Amino acid sequence: MSLTDAERFSRLRLARTDQIGPVTFRQLLDRFGTAERALEALPDLIRRGGRGHALPTVENVEAEMAAGERAGARLMVLGDADYPAMLAAVDPPPPLLWTLGDAALMARPCIAVVGARIASAGGQRIARGLAQQLGEAGHVVVSGLARGIDGAAHTGALPTGTVAVLGGGVDDVYPPDNADLYAQIADQGCIVSESPMGARAQAKDFPRRNRIISGLSRGVIVVEAELRSGSLITARLAGEQGRDVFAGPGSPLDPRSKGPNELLRQGAILCEGLEDVQRAFSTLRTLREPPGDNPFDGAPDELDAALIEQVAALLSPTPTPRDELARALDLPIGTVAAALLELSLTGRATLLPGGLASR
Amino acid sequence: MSLTDAERFSRLRLARTDQIGPVTFRQLLDRFGTAERALEALPDLIRRGGRGHALPTVENVEAEMAAGERAGARLMVLGDADYPAMLAAVDPPPPLLWTLGDAALMARPCIAVVGARIASAGGQRIARGLAQQLGEAGHVVVSGLARGIDGAAHTGALPTGTVAVLGGGVDDVYPPDNADLYAQIADQGCIVSESPMGARAQAKDFPRRNRIISGLSRGVIVVEAELRSGSLITARLAGEQGRDVFAGPGSPLDPRSKGPNELLRQGAILCEGLEDVQRAFSTLRTLREPPGDNPFDGAPDELDAALIEQVAALLSPTPTPRDELARALDLPIGTVAAALLELSLTGRATLLPGGLASR
Repeated sequence: MSLTDAERFSRLRLARTDQIGPVTFRQLLDRFGTAERALEALPDLIRRGGRGHALPTVENVEAEMAAGERAGARLMVLGDADYPAMLAAVDPPPPLLWTLGDAALMARPCIAVVGARIASAGGQRIARGLAQQLGEAGHVVVSGLARGIDGAAHTGALPTGTVAVLGGGVDDVYPPDNADLYAQIADQGCIVSESPMGARAQAKDFPRRNRIISGLSRGVIVVEAELRSGSLITARLAGEQGRDVFAGPGSPLDPRSKGPNELLRQGAILCEGLEDVQRAFSTLRTLREPPGDNPFDGAPDELDAALIEQVAALLSPTPTPRDELARALDLPIGTVAAALLELSLTGRATLLPGGLASR
Repeated sequence: MSLTDAERFSRLRLARTDQIGPVTFRQLLDRFGTAERALEALPDLIRRGGRGHALPTVENVEAEMAAGERAGARLMVLGDADYPAMLAAVDPPPPLLWTLGDAALMARPCIAVVGARIASAGGQRIARGLAQQLGEAGHVVVSGLARGIDGAAHTGALPTGTVAVLGGGVDDVYPPDNADLYAQIADQGCIVSESPMGARAQAKDFPRRNRIISGLSRGVIVVEAELRSGSLITARLAGEQGRDVFAGPGSPLDPRSKGPNELLRQGAILCEGLEDVQRAFSTLRTLREPPGDNPFDGAPDELDAALIEQVAALLSPTPTPRDELARALDLPIGTVAAALLELSLTGRATLLPGGLASR
C-alpha cells in the first residue's frame, strides 16, 4: 500500500511543524492514521490546550518540494515502501529523508565507518582500506562526509557504494574541502539528510545526523576519535539502537586512540579488518522490532478536559511509562496515550521513546 | 614450621631427579610427607616397576648448593616459609627457585609486564612508563629480562622493585645486551630461576620461565607481541592460573599489535595505564585455592602389584581423572593415586595437574 502524493505532502508538512519531533510525529500517525487527518485535527487540539500553534503554510511546504525537485533530490517519508527498513526499526524513526543520488543503496546491508576529523595518515589509510574491503564484501559504507576518517571511508567505498548523511540539507556542500567528494557521492552514491533543502548545517543538527548514520547501519566502526567526539555519540546511539559497535584499537600514545580504546573497555568489538565484522555479523541477531501495537487502540475520539488534567497532574520531570500512569488512574492505556499526545502538543508534556513521558 | 637443612637439600635432590616434574614432586611430598622419606622409598618403587632410575648423586647436589653459595644466590624450596604465596597457589608449583638479590620483593604484590623483543620505540616507552607508574603505586614489576619490552619494564621499575625470571641459571647473563641491567637488578631487585646454577638458557626453558613470571603475579600486561610469541604463552598461562590478563592496544598497521589485539578479542582487559590495572584489581577476587586435601589419605603403604596393573590397564592417551579410575575399579581414591604415582615413576603413566593422569 503506497502513500498518495497528498499524504506524502502532508507528512512533510507535519514533520516541519514546530515542536513536532519524531516521537510526536509517529504518535500522531498512530492516533489519526494519516498525516492528512492529523493536520486537520491539530488546530483544534492545540486550541483546546489554550495555545497558538502555527502549522507551516502550504506555500512553504510547496517551496521545499520545489527546491528538492530543482536539486534533483527525492523525498522519502516514513511509510514509503522504500523507506529503509533498518531506519524504520529505530525508535522513533526520522519522519523523512531527502536523498540525492542512488537511494536504493540504503536497502542494501549498510555499515557505518566514522571517526576523527583531524585523523592521522595511518587512521585514514585504515578507514579507506576497511571501507574498500567492506564494499567488496557487499556492504554499503555509511558515513558523515566530515574531513578525516569520514572522507577516507567514503573514498574507499566510492566504487562499491557509499551513503553520506549530512547535517544540513542535501544541497549544503559541507565541509567545503570535501566538495569534490560530495559531487562524486551524489553521482555514484547517495547523499541523505533529514534537514530541509537549503538548510545550512548547524551544531544542533549533528546528533540527528549521527542517529541516521547509525540507524541505517547494522554496525558502526569507530576508527580514531577523541573521548568527547561526535563519533563516540554515534557509537552510543548505535548501541541504543541495538546495532553492533566496533572500534579500531590504537596506541595509548596517540590521543586519537582514546575514543576507540574507551569503547573497547565498554565492550565494543575489536576491529582490525573485514574478518572482525564478518565474525560479528555471522552470529544470529534479529533486528530489534519496531514498537508494535498502536498505543491508541480503544482511545475515544474526544477526550474529557478533566481527564487530561488528571494525567497532567501525575507527570514529573522523571520520565514515566504510560502504562504506569494508566494503572494509577485506572484508565485504558489508549486514553492515557491520547491525553499525553494532546498535552505534548501544547508543551505540557514531553513524549519520549519507549512510551515514556515527562513534564 | 620451617624445613631443616637436610630436608631442603633432599627437596633439591628430588627436584633434580630425571622424570620428576613438578606434578610428581608435589605428589611425592604428599605421599611421603617429606622429600627425605620420598628419596628413601624411590629406588624400591622404581625397582618394583622393573626399571632403573638414577637419583642425582649427593655430590652433584652438593655441587649445585656450593655453586649457588659462591654466586651469592639463595635456594628457596616449596614449603619454605618465604616461598611466594602466589606461586604456591599455581598447580603444580615449581619445586624450587634460585634467587639472587632481594627475594623479599616476591612477597609484595607483583605484576608482570612482558612483550616483544623487537619492540617499537613507542612500545618501550609505554612499558617503561607503565612499570614506573606501577612501581610508584606499590607493585613489584616482574618480567623476563629479554630485549625490548621486558628490558624497558625492568628499567622503569628498577627504583621501586623489579624481579627478573631467567630461563637459564640465575648466574646465566642472557641476553648479553642486558648485562648492565642484569647487574642492576641483581643489586637492587631480584633475579630468579628454576634452572640449576650454571645452566645456559635453552629454548625448552622458556615456557617454565614464563609460568613463573605469571605465577608470581596477580596480573600480566602484554604491551607489544606477535601472534605466535612467548608473551602470548605467558598470557595464556596467566589465564589458566586465574590471574588477570591485560593488553595494551595498538594500531592494526603495526604487526606488533596483533598479539595484544588478539588478547583483547579473547577478553583481556584493555590497559592504557595504571588506572586500568587499579580498576581491575579493585574488584574482589580470591586467589584460586591450591589443591587442598592430600590425595593419598588412606592409601596403604605397600600396593599390590596386580592392583597397579589394573590401574595401568585403564589408562589411555586421554587424560582421565583419578576419581573416575577409582569408581571404575571400586577402589579408594588414595589407593589409585598411589598406584598412578608408582606407574609414573617408571614412565608408564603421566601425572597431570588437577588429579588427571594419562598413559
